[in-house]
Amino acid sequence: MGSIGLVTPQQMHFSEPLPLKSGAALVDYTLVYETYGTLNADRSNAVLVCHALNASHHVAGRHGDGTLGWWDNLVGPGKPLDTERFFVIGVNNPGSCFGSTGPTHVNPATGGHYGADFPVVTVEDWVDAQVRLVQRLGIEQLAAVLGGSLGGMQALDWSLRHPTLLRHCVAVATAPNLSAQNIAFNEVARRAIVTDPDFHGGHYLAQGTLPQRGLRVARMIGHITYLSDDAMEARFGRELKAVDGRLGYTTQDIEFQIESYLRHQGDKFSAYFDANTYLLITRALDYFDPALPHGGSLTRAFAAALGKRFLLVSFTTDWRFSPARSREIVKALVDNRIDVSYAEIDAPHGHDAFLLDDPRYHAVMRAYFDRIGEQA
Amino acid sequence: MGSIGLVTPQQMHFSEPLPLKSGAALVDYTLVYETYGTLNADRSNAVLVCHALNASHHVAGRHGDGTLGWWDNLVGPGKPLDTERFFVIGVNNPGSCFGSTGPTHVNPATGGHYGADFPVVTVEDWVDAQVRLVQRLGIEQLAAVLGGSLGGMQALDWSLRHPTLLRHCVAVATAPNLSAQNIAFNEVARRAIVTDPDFHGGHYLAQGTLPQRGLRVARMIGHITYLSDDAMEARFGRELKAVDGRLGYTTQDIEFQIESYLRHQGDKFSAYFDANTYLLITRALDYFDPALPHGGSLTRAFAAALGKRFLLVSFTTDWRFSPARSREIVKALVDNRIDVSYAEIDAPHGHDAFLLDDPRYHAVMRAYFDRIGEQA
Repeated sequence: MGSIGLVTPQQMHFSEPLPLKSGAALVDYTLVYETYGTLNADRSNAVLVCHALNASHHVAGRHGDGTLGWWDNLVGPGKPLDTERFFVIGVNNPGSCFGSTGPTHVNPATGGHYGADFPVVTVEDWVDAQVRLVQRLGIEQLAAVLGGSLGGMQALDWSLRHPTLLRHCVAVATAPNLSAQNIAFNEVARRAIVTDPDFHGGHYLAQGTLPQRGLRVARMIGHITYLSDDAMEARFGRELKAVDGRLGYTTQDIEFQIESYLRHQGDKFSAYFDANTYLLITRALDYFDPALPHGGSLTRAFAAALGKRFLLVSFTTDWRFSPARSREIVKALVDNRIDVSYAEIDAPHGHDAFLLDDPRYHAVMRAYFDRIGEQA
Repeated sequence: MGSIGLVTPQQMHFSEPLPLKSGAALVDYTLVYETYGTLNADRSNAVLVCHALNASHHVAGRHGDGTLGWWDNLVGPGKPLDTERFFVIGVNNPGSCFGSTGPTHVNPATGGHYGADFPVVTVEDWVDAQVRLVQRLGIEQLAAVLGGSLGGMQALDWSLRHPTLLRHCVAVATAPNLSAQNIAFNEVARRAIVTDPDFHGGHYLAQGTLPQRGLRVARMIGHITYLSDDAMEARFGRELKAVDGRLGYTTQDIEFQIESYLRHQGDKFSAYFDANTYLLITRALDYFDPALPHGGSLTRAFAAALGKRFLLVSFTTDWRFSPARSREIVKALVDNRIDVSYAEIDAPHGHDAFLLDDPRYHAVMRAYFDRIGEQA
């Protein structure tokens, strides 16, 4: 398997306003994206990759500063999503803090940062923005839309609201909506951010501050939910930080390795992630609920995807979006006689498994994309 | 089943310093306690009830302000722990904010509040303090020590370090130590408190402030872990706060009922609970690990409890201290040929189930205490 090598993000500007689900509109915005591989003559081999909370357009390859794409183990020459066969597009969603127009950008209405005034964006809004990008790239129909977690929700939405624009939907470690517990974790994280005195109602940039305390706590909470209980136990258990194995008997300092790890994750994240983006993205997760307009029936919702083909993948130890949530989607597809392959991977890593290169998982992905490639 | 009626907390002062596991000592302290029922002539019918994080000596009956004891559904005349038969003692642990000497009290060394200078207390320290109280009450051997969650850890510790002072150990919804994930949740809660600018290194009382933002977030996190995913789903699901069912498209205001509920829990808790107490109690949870001095062998640890009798109860949907954790204790007891009854209650409520009056759970408790009573 080769490497994509150096990649350079591209930008596309849109001056036509994007109508949002909330009723507001996003005016005059830019999307940052990357592409890997070559679009074939009949433009039939394009695959769009949708990102989740802490990710971006940088799906694969290497940036000038050495940063590897977040799904580089999956996407590349000879890899399961083979860039020698497919033209792969990674796009950063509006509202992000990684390049596309978002809360840290200038609000044309005020001349200051958007901050908390950035409009609330939904999975559907992101997909609509992606549709415009794909069409501007001259692609009439995608071979597939692929995503994990929140990215999987975007892939599902493509199949529901733009079914003519794709042939396959590949949704990994995702769910048809958030459970009360999922929303609860999001809400605690948001409260940690919003009640940070440095948040200033979301206009912290105008105040020259950053609500890093809140972001740290938010990330620590998130991180616990990304890992399985077992994976955390195997990696950290009750191991102490002190090398001599002696307890310090302290309430404020670190005693256990797991504490050290979580604090480190929180510190790292709070140094680069935007707090308003965190609020926006967790809210997009909360709002996603394709069954809602169908009286709660996921089966009726997926009737819109007739004729599409699906791969769903879940991981046994994922307690954020458990296999049971993926099976709800599988059931809705089967109810509609829609072609679906489903793999439940017995992996120990919890939700994070979708980003790792478990061989059984990648074998499933490879086989499915091989099948798509033969049809492309 | 009758009611205990009005109860008045009592106080006992101890001028002999209590040596702590950390090497420090607690000097000149007071324990607040309550008793229900009557100690019999041969002083053989006393049951000590140990409390968990957000509880106190007020186990049963009613205070003058109407507050019902936290385990009033279990303890009272004709109730599973029958106060017509048993003399029941509830005691508030040192370090608490509910009456016994704790961080909000005056530090004799400085004349100011203890605050963050209150010594770190462990499950073992609490039990040693309880032993002194019980002995001062003229009780040579308890019929039983009972506790749920962190209270269960105290009951286990009695059986391990003071086996001659009790006949039965009743430990509900508990664990032989915290998992990495348990510690992780505690640590996030602590970070939310400690990084609140109003925390002032734990000396907020001297500054005239309270770290209520941090406490709110800590409580919200805790609350999620006390409820099962299913119970939260059944009670709240994705129900909206707005009665007209319309979304507000807001990142900072409440949309879902679960958010409203969690915020309310956080607000309520932060108005009465002390932040330093929260740190101390979560640390006591982290530190408890009776297998540690035995090379990690719980079986070798429980050899100390030979001749004692145990009831362990767990709840199927408790993901904080799952049935698997109780079964570890059961196995260690069985390995030692120690008499143990174990009930795994199929209850939907998660960890909180130990406080509720599920009839199957209470039937087990009643049967076991009846057995103890026949021997008392």
